[in-house]
Amino acid sequence: MFETVSENRCFDGVQGVYSHDSDVCGCNMTFGLFLPEEAAEGPVPLLWYLSGLTCTHENAMTKSGAQAWAAEHGIALAFPDTSPRGEGVADDDAYDLGQGAGFYVNAVQEPWAPHYRMWDYVATELPRLLFNNFALDEERQAITGHSMGGHGALTLAMNHPGRYASVSAFAPIAHPSMSDWGRKQLTAYLGTDTDAWARHDATLLMREGGFAGPVLIDQGASDQFLDLLKPEALAAAIAEVRQPGTFRMHEGYDHSYFFVSSFMEDHVSFHADALYR
Amino acid sequence: MFETVSENRCFDGVQGVYSHDSDVCGCNMTFGLFLPEEAAEGPVPLLWYLSGLTCTHENAMTKSGAQAWAAEHGIALAFPDTSPRGEGVADDDAYDLGQGAGFYVNAVQEPWAPHYRMWDYVATELPRLLFNNFALDEERQAITGHSMGGHGALTLAMNHPGRYASVSAFAPIAHPSMSDWGRKQLTAYLGTDTDAWARHDATLLMREGGFAGPVLIDQGASDQFLDLLKPEALAAAIAEVRQPGTFRMHEGYDHSYFFVSSFMEDHVSFHADALYR
Repeated sequence: MFETVSENRCFDGVQGVYSHDSDVCGCNMTFGLFLPEEAAEGPVPLLWYLSGLTCTHENAMTKSGAQAWAAEHGIALAFPDTSPRGEGVADDDAYDLGQGAGFYVNAVQEPWAPHYRMWDYVATELPRLLFNNFALDEERQAITGHSMGGHGALTLAMNHPGRYASVSAFAPIAHPSMSDWGRKQLTAYLGTDTDAWARHDATLLMREGGFAGPVLIDQGASDQFLDLLKPEALAAAIAEVRQPGTFRMHEGYDHSYFFVSSFMEDHVSFHADALYR
Repeated sequence: MFETVSENRCFDGVQGVYSHDSDVCGCNMTFGLFLPEEAAEGPVPLLWYLSGLTCTHENAMTKSGAQAWAAEHGIALAFPDTSPRGEGVADDDAYDLGQGAGFYVNAVQEPWAPHYRMWDYVATELPRLLFNNFALDEERQAITGHSMGGHGALTLAMNHPGRYASVSAFAPIAHPSMSDWGRKQLTAYLGTDTDAWARHDATLLMREGGFAGPVLIDQGASDQFLDLLKPEALAAAIAEVRQPGTFRMHEGYDHSYFFVSSFMEDHVSFHADALYR
């Protein structure tokens, strides 16, 4: 079913890394899972953390500092990979296409279609594996992510009403259908029919009605990728549809994990409020 | 004097990386420095973090989670490298000798002597650079470290009475003159005269009188390197000389940064108590 790659005791819980043969992606996939101490007593809430371009399951697991706060609230953390991997899986020389850049969609275009199905992987296959095998409460899920992972978190949350109690994002790719971080990948994976893009654009989804729960977006004002992220489009949409939520622009912060870790406590607390309501 | 490699806003302060030509090591050296927000108002206390085998300045800076707690207490963090680096600097194929394994001594044996002077670098040259160029209070210093860096922290602290207000260590190499993590390196760098080793062995220094301030040692009970670290020797010495301090053995924890980060809050709080006394 799955293999244990490593398990390390961490904040009285366990930070595990596991691998499994993914039917959806047609390759072996690796993910991280932090289980707090409370999981030994019974199912705990689960916060999904989706990572950005170039990342694996490992970056946030080692650099975001999330376990400290998850342990404080008795919440588990899932860290999926960002794409299918391995020989035989299509790739591209660019850092922002192919392996490490799955964009949380199901590709229908060649050469990506056979393996690049990160939407189904994160929305369906990996949840089934986690809820079947670990002490996790399927009725209490929340989701967050950084950059491309923020895009994934927002689009998954708005496309699955009722599944996630809350959604947050750190510097998300907020309007991919109007950005070079988006048009290139959506064209490659989904084709030129932009109707198919709409459910993978957080700003468009927000304009269509938003999310039935609280939303938290943090963005660094000195982010080197502001032109690509387009936070202004999402902020405007949040205001237009009167989405309950918080959008924060933080002076001086950039796109790095130093930004993510600085506000991780706020995000985990935000989700804990929703998960334990 | 020094070059700025990067500066990232982090917990309302700045996580910087800087490089400089080291006279002591005869090569270019890189270090990390976290300055909390309070440093903009005037000099702040400084906690040194010395890293372990194979690490650079970067590992603890990205994986220990220390900035969260340092920011809370208004304390700066210095992250030196673990050895001289570069072409022309002697090295060894083993992970535990040469580059990445300076052991915080001044080598007198060839081929190490010209560059491997990490003792003088961490005790003298880097402090001068830091106190001359950043808003740091030389009268309020403390020191910690992990594994080989725990060895460095303890031996630097006990050899410089009055300099550091407090010393702590995560899974330190506690008795190197009686361990394969120690005998090999001390022989290579210092030669076979074991008298010269004594000031680089925390257990021997503790037996000679210990440290004039509080000591905190954390050790994982499932550490895969317990036989090499020899915590029992240091714990016994602490008890024998009635050293004020705390030695904690933590069930289930191993040697990884998941262990270090789990107890980092305690260490920073421990040093803050001494630095703000």
